[in-house]
Amino acid sequence: MSFAARARRLSETANITIFEKGLFIGYANCGIPYALGGIIQSDEALILQTPESVNARYNVNVRHNTEVVGINREKKTIDFKTRDHPVRSVAYHKLILAQGAEAFRPPMKGSDAPNVFTLQTIPDLTAVKKYMSTHGSKSVAIIGGGFIGLEAAEALHALGKQVSVIEYMPHVFPPVDQDVAEPLHTEIRRNHVSVHLNARIQQIVPAAEGGTTSHILLESGGKIPGDVVLLVVGVRPRVHLAEQAGLETNRFGIVTNAQMQTSDPDIYAVGDMACTTNMITQNQQNLALAGPANRQGRLAADHIFGRDVAYRGNVGTSACKVFGINVALVGPSMSNLRAQGIEAEYVTVHPPNHAGYYPGATPLSLKLAFSPTDGKILSAQIIGKDGVDKRIDVLATCITAGMTVYDLEHLELAYAPPFGSAKDPVNMAGFVAANVLRKDTEIIHAEDLTADTLSEYQVIDVRAAGEYVNGHMKNAKLLPLNELRKHFDEIDKSKKVLVHCQVGYRGYLGYRILKQAGYDVYNLDGGFKTVSQGAFNDLIA
Amino acid sequence: MSFAARARRLSETANITIFEKGLFIGYANCGIPYALGGIIQSDEALILQTPESVNARYNVNVRHNTEVVGINREKKTIDFKTRDHPVRSVAYHKLILAQGAEAFRPPMKGSDAPNVFTLQTIPDLTAVKKYMSTHGSKSVAIIGGGFIGLEAAEALHALGKQVSVIEYMPHVFPPVDQDVAEPLHTEIRRNHVSVHLNARIQQIVPAAEGGTTSHILLESGGKIPGDVVLLVVGVRPRVHLAEQAGLETNRFGIVTNAQMQTSDPDIYAVGDMACTTNMITQNQQNLALAGPANRQGRLAADHIFGRDVAYRGNVGTSACKVFGINVALVGPSMSNLRAQGIEAEYVTVHPPNHAGYYPGATPLSLKLAFSPTDGKILSAQIIGKDGVDKRIDVLATCITAGMTVYDLEHLELAYAPPFGSAKDPVNMAGFVAANVLRKDTEIIHAEDLTADTLSEYQVIDVRAAGEYVNGHMKNAKLLPLNELRKHFDEIDKSKKVLVHCQVGYRGYLGYRILKQAGYDVYNLDGGFKTVSQGAFNDLIA
Repeated sequence: MSFAARARRLSETANITIFEKGLFIGYANCGIPYALGGIIQSDEALILQTPESVNARYNVNVRHNTEVVGINREKKTIDFKTRDHPVRSVAYHKLILAQGAEAFRPPMKGSDAPNVFTLQTIPDLTAVKKYMSTHGSKSVAIIGGGFIGLEAAEALHALGKQVSVIEYMPHVFPPVDQDVAEPLHTEIRRNHVSVHLNARIQQIVPAAEGGTTSHILLESGGKIPGDVVLLVVGVRPRVHLAEQAGLETNRFGIVTNAQMQTSDPDIYAVGDMACTTNMITQNQQNLALAGPANRQGRLAADHIFGRDVAYRGNVGTSACKVFGINVALVGPSMSNLRAQGIEAEYVTVHPPNHAGYYPGATPLSLKLAFSPTDGKILSAQIIGKDGVDKRIDVLATCITAGMTVYDLEHLELAYAPPFGSAKDPVNMAGFVAANVLRKDTEIIHAEDLTADTLSEYQVIDVRAAGEYVNGHMKNAKLLPLNELRKHFDEIDKSKKVLVHCQVGYRGYLGYRILKQAGYDVYNLDGGFKTVSQGAFNDLIA
Repeated sequence: MSFAARARRLSETANITIFEKGLFIGYANCGIPYALGGIIQSDEALILQTPESVNARYNVNVRHNTEVVGINREKKTIDFKTRDHPVRSVAYHKLILAQGAEAFRPPMKGSDAPNVFTLQTIPDLTAVKKYMSTHGSKSVAIIGGGFIGLEAAEALHALGKQVSVIEYMPHVFPPVDQDVAEPLHTEIRRNHVSVHLNARIQQIVPAAEGGTTSHILLESGGKIPGDVVLLVVGVRPRVHLAEQAGLETNRFGIVTNAQMQTSDPDIYAVGDMACTTNMITQNQQNLALAGPANRQGRLAADHIFGRDVAYRGNVGTSACKVFGINVALVGPSMSNLRAQGIEAEYVTVHPPNHAGYYPGATPLSLKLAFSPTDGKILSAQIIGKDGVDKRIDVLATCITAGMTVYDLEHLELAYAPPFGSAKDPVNMAGFVAANVLRKDTEIIHAEDLTADTLSEYQVIDVRAAGEYVNGHMKNAKLLPLNELRKHFDEIDKSKKVLVHCQVGYRGYLGYRILKQAGYDVYNLDGGFKTVSQGAFNDLIA
């Protein structure tokens, strides 16, 4: 649709036809989980365009319920069929493949049962809704804890269903790191939705004859109720037609150049089916995001109508609301960077979203990855209540601009008490990261510690006594920051010191004091808060 | 305080002393309007540091209630006095001037009455609160419709006071343009606070002997109730001490270099009193914003302790909450750019803050100024409900990075239905601006039209009939977009055409259709919505 609209704006005389296998064009599939739960009250609200409206406004011919079954690149024709007509052919000058991706259905015993659904299209939505209402389904098991699974969990819980999320990985929302994702588990469970991690499904056990209660059997023996089962474990590019036509593909989708042309220059591929370049890693990737898809369609039209354009690649900016918490990222997580062999350092900060003295301030956790050589920003992961999407968009802009952590120190962001702080969380992350690169502080990450290695350090907790008693690190000695200068006699100069506070700042002050006093000292990145959020329980006393 | 904290982190051995004329150091004066109205419930919440806490944590000596009355640059000493001691001297190696700015008190008859207050400091706050409670003040007249005036208006209205805002200029929040500010007037009045624009005050009429009701008399004869009068018309840098010492100053404050050094390299000036460079215009300016002040203090410490640092200048990012509306800007408004002789074009868009199909979407108005030669972004002004601060921070980042409107087309911002749209408002502004620069559309601004010049055009309203009847332009002919291609016979090819819709997009489609059909056509920037928000009533039928 982005292609068609832009193409028509550039040419009133072009003959533009859209072939759509199903009934719907131009609908908002990002809204489907919300329509399932009634947060979006009418399914029709998702339908942004109809064949009629598109034709009236853009003079574009829409053939819906029409499947394209073949491409003849030599003759430059496509073959299509409808329910009522056998295969016919039509010629093209330029062909745009915008078939998207399809919900992945992993091989799984019982996954063909009538109570198992994917949730990608309006027909999917309609089918699940109809099944739930016909069968009076009380429980829903959601297989997959990604975007759709988490959004659906919230929506179905709001409908009063008993909801379970089943995730194969050690944490939900796999695009982010374990330590970033941990608060999601707490939030989901706090809302009485169960979460099963590292879960291996043995089978989906269908309802007994005439019954409506089904369940999922885990390899561990666990049984998870699932009158309805949603299979939302990601999507795969629809490459079948392109492969049949001999277009180049790889494991990320259809290979395209910067003009979105496939290996056949008269055929373009855009959106979820196209393989594109990650702007940060320069690696190929498949990205199923609406924003890039829209821009690719627009860009293909520009190119066909003679504009000098180039797609710059993606940074992978995304966000997800999970009950009262928002999580967002741009760029590859630390584990993803490591998997790609990209050298990266990171820092974690936990500042409030706006001035702490103004009512309603809530903390953010921001994990910023950057190049240890030149400070270039590689990725950011943020979790919190308000202001998460703002900071991820600012950092996505920084990454796109090729900025470094030093640039973040200078960034001038809006501050009034309801909106931010004189030092915005983005500035704070920049300060901390730049301190690390300038060696004004040396940090240790919780993930690099174990209960064993922790004993190699003198662990100095510089928080107040009241914070210490509410939970502290193993072997930690309490020495509140304001007392630290008076108690050097209690710290052994021959042994490494691990100093820490709640979120990192007082630990940093403690580091500066001890370092200048001649200690071999390290500050714990993200402080006790990072340790206490679930991923590092073995470090807690 | 930023200087002192950073200096101590860099050196445990430096001897650091803060001289403070009053009682308070390190307090959040941005929160004062909110503390006045009880939104921040305790005045103590504003006091972020005390002399004792600073000394304990940073080992910094704080001399409060101590006024510095002179600088002897040759001897490198300062003279200071307290209530109990005559003038004494102390030596310095480096001197940091961080005296800030003081509330401006314009010459005005009656402004020395006991019910007239400025609102910049904690003593100001205490004095106003005490006066209001002692005198049972019912009405408050606020002279000045800037940040503090508007925040105070909201806060005092919440206390049940009868509040009036008196503004000398044709609109409140003078940093933005008239058309951007207009919705603020509607919002303030909707909340039963009166707004007096272009107001010339003849005098503040004090209460009669023993009475408590005072009022303000305008030159127009109008009387505005003001049992309490707040004089909040901006601030002036405190340059007296620096001038006395022969340091270079100009009308923007104390002249500094990129290391924040004054004309005496051993004396630094930071914060509201320092003249700094605008990163966009390269012109000198005085900026009274907390974020830059903090960073300047930190940078001065870095420089003194041997770091190679340079202040990059400001972009002037700021935001203000006005009842249910937020307004924000970065860079100079169009009128400000014109006043500085900087060539600029602009576009106006009115997209929703997030996907329209997700509940709670509200419109933003975004006015983007850019260089007509290379597309470099010069400024942005945004008004709306949610998401204003997010987009201004993204655009501040873009400006800092030297981005163009073409870069905005490519920007990849987070989209999930609760947060944004596949085409974010920032992308939309980029698309429209780039369309203008590439001459894919020619636009006309409402401010360049009068009822007279409008008659030179065939005004074609391409909205739906239902929108037209709710209000339309003078001489506008209704031709809904979807009908346009069939009704060329009703449009005179020999006359210029001004096409428009509600917010600009359908007008742009209409432009493309008519342009390709051979018409001399222009699209109205921002559509009827820009016209109907108050600044261009003479164009409405």
